[in-house]
Amino acid sequence: MRNILWKACVTAPVDDRTGHSIVPETQRRPENRYGNRPTMKDVAARAGVGLKTVSRVVNGEPGVTPETERRVQEAIDALGFRRNDSARVLRKGRTASIGLVLEDLADPFYGQLSRAVEEVARAHGALLINGSSAEDPDREQELALALCARRVDGLVVIPAGDDHRYLEPEIKAGVATVFVDRPAGRIDADCVLSDNFGGAREGVAHLLAHGHRRIGFIGDMPRIHTAAERLRGYRAAMEEAGIPVEDAWMSLGATDPVRVRRAAEEMLAGPAPVTAVFSGNNRVTVTVIRVLAEQTRRTALVAFDDLELADLLQPGVTVVAQDAATLGRTAAERLFRQLDGTLLVPERIEVPIRLVARGSGELPPAD
Amino acid sequence: MRNILWKACVTAPVDDRTGHSIVPETQRRPENRYGNRPTMKDVAARAGVGLKTVSRVVNGEPGVTPETERRVQEAIDALGFRRNDSARVLRKGRTASIGLVLEDLADPFYGQLSRAVEEVARAHGALLINGSSAEDPDREQELALALCARRVDGLVVIPAGDDHRYLEPEIKAGVATVFVDRPAGRIDADCVLSDNFGGAREGVAHLLAHGHRRIGFIGDMPRIHTAAERLRGYRAAMEEAGIPVEDAWMSLGATDPVRVRRAAEEMLAGPAPVTAVFSGNNRVTVTVIRVLAEQTRRTALVAFDDLELADLLQPGVTVVAQDAATLGRTAAERLFRQLDGTLLVPERIEVPIRLVARGSGELPPAD
Repeated sequence: MRNILWKACVTAPVDDRTGHSIVPETQRRPENRYGNRPTMKDVAARAGVGLKTVSRVVNGEPGVTPETERRVQEAIDALGFRRNDSARVLRKGRTASIGLVLEDLADPFYGQLSRAVEEVARAHGALLINGSSAEDPDREQELALALCARRVDGLVVIPAGDDHRYLEPEIKAGVATVFVDRPAGRIDADCVLSDNFGGAREGVAHLLAHGHRRIGFIGDMPRIHTAAERLRGYRAAMEEAGIPVEDAWMSLGATDPVRVRRAAEEMLAGPAPVTAVFSGNNRVTVTVIRVLAEQTRRTALVAFDDLELADLLQPGVTVVAQDAATLGRTAAERLFRQLDGTLLVPERIEVPIRLVARGSGELPPAD
Repeated sequence: MRNILWKACVTAPVDDRTGHSIVPETQRRPENRYGNRPTMKDVAARAGVGLKTVSRVVNGEPGVTPETERRVQEAIDALGFRRNDSARVLRKGRTASIGLVLEDLADPFYGQLSRAVEEVARAHGALLINGSSAEDPDREQELALALCARRVDGLVVIPAGDDHRYLEPEIKAGVATVFVDRPAGRIDADCVLSDNFGGAREGVAHLLAHGHRRIGFIGDMPRIHTAAERLRGYRAAMEEAGIPVEDAWMSLGATDPVRVRRAAEEMLAGPAPVTAVFSGNNRVTVTVIRVLAEQTRRTALVAFDDLELADLLQPGVTVVAQDAATLGRTAAERLFRQLDGTLLVPERIEVPIRLVARGSGELPPAD
C-alpha cells in the first residue's frame, strides 16, 4: 500500500445550521472554488491535465508519464490537496483499517494486547482504530457497528456482551472478525483465548501443594467469561483436593478498590480466616496486595495476570501470567488471514498461561 | 446525537482484481439487489415508501408519521440495513469522531490519558479513534493525516516530531486540534502540558534538601520535549545549589531496559558514585528500581511519573506525579470548545505536578 493516504479532499465541511463553510472568510484560500479544501478539479486545472489523470496519480495507478506525474504532484503540493478516504471507500472495497473494541484503555493488559494488534496491522499497511466498551455490552455493540459503518476491513473484539448476532450482517458482508480474550456469543467465529480454567486450576493447585486448605477467590463480575472460567478452575482444584468450598471464600463483583478491599478483609477476619488468596485479575490484585500488606499475619497469594513491579515486592507476587502480546498478535494475524481469503473455518485458539513462582504463592499457612 | 449510527449501507465491497463481491455466492442474501448489503432502496421497496422517506427516518429528521416510521423501521430490521457513515460524511460536515495520536498504547501514562480523552468524547457523542506513533515523527504525520482523511472532527496529538506545519491545511479546513504532553512545533496551537521543568527542579531540590550533592539524571531521548525540559529542571536545581554538574551524572537516550541499566550501573560504580538518582519517566524508573534493588549500598531515588505499586515497594518510591487524566480531559475539553466555536485564541495550559514523598527520595547519602 503506497503511502499517499494523506493526499485528498472533497468539499469543505459546512455548518449544519447555516449551510455556510465553518471556516472564517479571512482564512479561506482564494484559489479554491469549493471553500477551503482544494479539490481534484483544482489540481487538474493548475496542472493543466484532465481529472482522470489526477485520479491516477493520487491512487498510484499506471498510465501517467513521469513528466505529467511531476506536474500533477507539484500542483498537489502547491494547493495542499488531501485525498478524502471517505469518498475513496465508495469506489473500492478496502479502507486499510482495522477496528479494535477493547474493555479499558487504561488497563496495562489491554494496553499490551492493543500494541501487539497495532504492530501486525502496521506491518500490513493498515491503521488501527480503537475504542473501549467499559464492560458495557451496549457500548460494545455501538462501537463495533460504528467501526463497521466506517468500513473497517476487519474487527478485533474483546467482548463485553454474550450475544454477537448483531454482527452477522457485517460478517456476511465481508468484515473479517476475530474475538480475543473472551469468546463470541451465539455465533461461530474465530476466538483467541487464554487457558483461563487451566491457569486458575494450576494456581490454586500450587497453593494446595504448599499446604493451604482455606483458600479464598476474589474475581471480576460473574457474567464476564474470564471471571467465570477462573472461578471454575478454582472450584475444580479444590474438588480434586477433596476440600468443600465455603461460600464465604468466594467473592465475585466489580474490581473497584472499595469492593475488593471489603471482600478481602472479610475473608481474612474471624476465627477461621483464609490462609491464601487467589486473585482473579490484575485490577483485583492491586487492591488485594495492599490489604495483605496491612495485615500482621502473612497470607499467601497467587494472582492471575502479571503486574509491573510485582517481582520487586517483598515477597514477590506469584502469578499465573497471560501473554497479552501473543493474544493480540495471534488475533490480528488470523484477521489478516481471513482477509487474504485463506482462512475459512472459525477456530478457537488457546494460548497457554505460565505460572511464575516469586514468593507470595509459596508462603506456608500461618497456622 | 441519536443513537442510529448503525443503520446504513451502500454497495457491497468488491474485490479489486476481479470486480466481484468479496462475499461467497452461498452467503449472499437473495433479496438484495446490490450484493450483500441492503440499500435504502431495498428498504423503501419493502416498506412501500419513497427513498426520501427512508432517508428521513434513518437520519432522524422530522416529517414522517409514526405509522410510516414504524413500517420503515420494520423493513430496516428485517433487511439488516446499516447506514454507511462514509457516504454520510459527504453530505454533512461532522463525523462525530475524534482522532488521538499518542506515543505508545502500552504505556500506562498514555493509557490513563487516552481513557480521559475518550470519556469526554463519549459525553459529546463522539467516537475516539486512536493509534500510536512509537516516537517516530514520520509515523505521527502519517497517522494524523490518515485520521484527517477519515474526516475526524478534531485531533488530539501527542507529538513525536517538532514541526507541525503539515497540519496547517487541515486546521484551516476546520479540523480542531489540541496538542498534549508536548507542544506543537512551528505552529500556533492549543497545548496542554505538565510543568516538566518545575517538576524536575522540585524533585532534584528535594534530594538536595536531604543532603545529596552527587545526583544522577537518567532520561529519555534529548530530542523529546519532556526529556529536555526535565533535564533543564535538574540543571537549574543543581545550579541554584551551587553544584557543578559532571557529565558522568547525566544520561539521556532510549528507555529500553538495556540502555537504562548500563547508564545506572555506570553512575553507581567507581570511587565517587552518585548517592541519588532522578529518573526522567516511568519507563526509565522501572529499570532503575531494579538496578538499585540489586545494589548493597542504598541510593536515593526520585522519579518523574507515578507507577502502579510504587508505594508498596520497600522503600516506597518518591515521585513527581503527573496527572494524566487531567491532561487528557483538559485537552479533549478544549477540543470541543474549539468545535463549538467558542475558543479562538490558541493557549498553552500547564497542569501542575505533585511531589509525593514515600521513602526512596528521603534516604540520606550513603557516605
